[in-house]
Amino acid sequence: MAEAQRDHAYTERSLAEPLAEVAGAPRRSAAEEARTLLAGTSVASLATLSDGAPWASLVQTGVLEDGGVVLCVSTLAEHGRNLLEDPRASVLVAAPEAGDDALARGRVTLAGIAHRPEGAARDAARAAYCARVPYAEGYVDFGDFSLWVLEVERVRWVGGYGRMASAEAADYAAARPDPVAPHAARAVAHLNEDHADALLAMVRALGGHPDATAATCMAADRLGLDLEAATPRGRAITRVGFAAPIDEPGGLRAATVELTRRSRELLA
Amino acid sequence: MAEAQRDHAYTERSLAEPLAEVAGAPRRSAAEEARTLLAGTSVASLATLSDGAPWASLVQTGVLEDGGVVLCVSTLAEHGRNLLEDPRASVLVAAPEAGDDALARGRVTLAGIAHRPEGAARDAARAAYCARVPYAEGYVDFGDFSLWVLEVERVRWVGGYGRMASAEAADYAAARPDPVAPHAARAVAHLNEDHADALLAMVRALGGHPDATAATCMAADRLGLDLEAATPRGRAITRVGFAAPIDEPGGLRAATVELTRRSRELLA
Repeated sequence: MAEAQRDHAYTERSLAEPLAEVAGAPRRSAAEEARTLLAGTSVASLATLSDGAPWASLVQTGVLEDGGVVLCVSTLAEHGRNLLEDPRASVLVAAPEAGDDALARGRVTLAGIAHRPEGAARDAARAAYCARVPYAEGYVDFGDFSLWVLEVERVRWVGGYGRMASAEAADYAAARPDPVAPHAARAVAHLNEDHADALLAMVRALGGHPDATAATCMAADRLGLDLEAATPRGRAITRVGFAAPIDEPGGLRAATVELTRRSRELLA
Repeated sequence: MAEAQRDHAYTERSLAEPLAEVAGAPRRSAAEEARTLLAGTSVASLATLSDGAPWASLVQTGVLEDGGVVLCVSTLAEHGRNLLEDPRASVLVAAPEAGDDALARGRVTLAGIAHRPEGAARDAARAAYCARVPYAEGYVDFGDFSLWVLEVERVRWVGGYGRMASAEAADYAAARPDPVAPHAARAVAHLNEDHADALLAMVRALGGHPDATAATCMAADRLGLDLEAATPRGRAITRVGFAAPIDEPGGLRAATVELTRRSRELLA
């Protein structure tokens, strides 16, 4: 095998192919993934320029409605001085580590130009920062701290091995965080603990693996479920889509109930 | 109060002053803090230059004996292409989050020039990377991946609010990770659960607060213990040093036993 063909071959684990045609289950866009990651944590890494050389530092962030990233940095710290010298900046936000493979998790790089908001824009930035950062009220107005807003021009999302995409700035600004993301981990655990039979029905009826013998849910989002299944032909990975996108935080239960009912009807 | 004087006043919580003279308990140097943080996790944020603008990304790292930071990046990813264009880079390594204040944790920024090691140097870099990164054997030799070593020229350590220092490159290269760091959290939990009386004796005898009524351990390292105490005069924070620096992973138990014995003798 030529070397070029082997590139990234490690992502192509041998998986069982679907036996039945599968309706394309929609996925969140890169813009939505980015906004969802940013909504999930206030902790980020900041890259700034120190005499033209890159400088990585730890920050916390707020988020404006249009996805502008609010920073609050001190001129006593290098990143604060760097932004005053050159406002180009980049922020990395990563999902919490899960499992032993740190590079399997989602993350997004946002890059653009930072500016210091004034007047009502500063009020909005201050509110967005303090809403997410405990203790910020204790220092945000001190003389050495400044609020900055990173206007995002470039968005590069990586969802793990082999899943990655860029987003246009306008799509990023218009996107919203997935409302079910804060509840997804608990819902996935509940499905796996108490509803393995329902997951198996989904994989058999809608996931393209009618011979599956067991199924687990790997992830849930507002558009569907990522499922892993055991089949006589080996391990399979599939995705099933909800009847309609969920648009409220508590919508996962009803959507999975509908998915289960539909799967069982198809199998009956 | 002038604005300048209020800068960083949030770090000055009202703490009880020691009543007795306290022997200066040594602390780890910034260089040792940096090496210890780097030894504690393979996960880091990388800052590179994308057409001269900063670009933050997620990486895993290996560490060479001299503190050189080993990266393994793909030219299919932006950070890989960036390094080929301009080898200036910076790496941020942070301690795991503990508590609800993300900026209270230790972190270090390392900055310098990355190069692609060859021959025996590549072998050493490959071994250092694979020793810390699960699954690396599965992709490290693929054609699109390259090993890089960041030669560290600048080191900036932040230990939390109000604790920060830079390290010289030579001191960083010569420093070693604290051998007790991997066991410190468990030791601290054990001290707080089962040996509150010993901690209180330390604070009273060696920590400068003979009127303390309760004590807990906040952190342990190869040089001593950080202790928090309740006193009739309010909350106190102090540090007690071990009789000698610990130089082996299992040394915390004997050092704290000695500290307890010494404290109780002084109080007897």
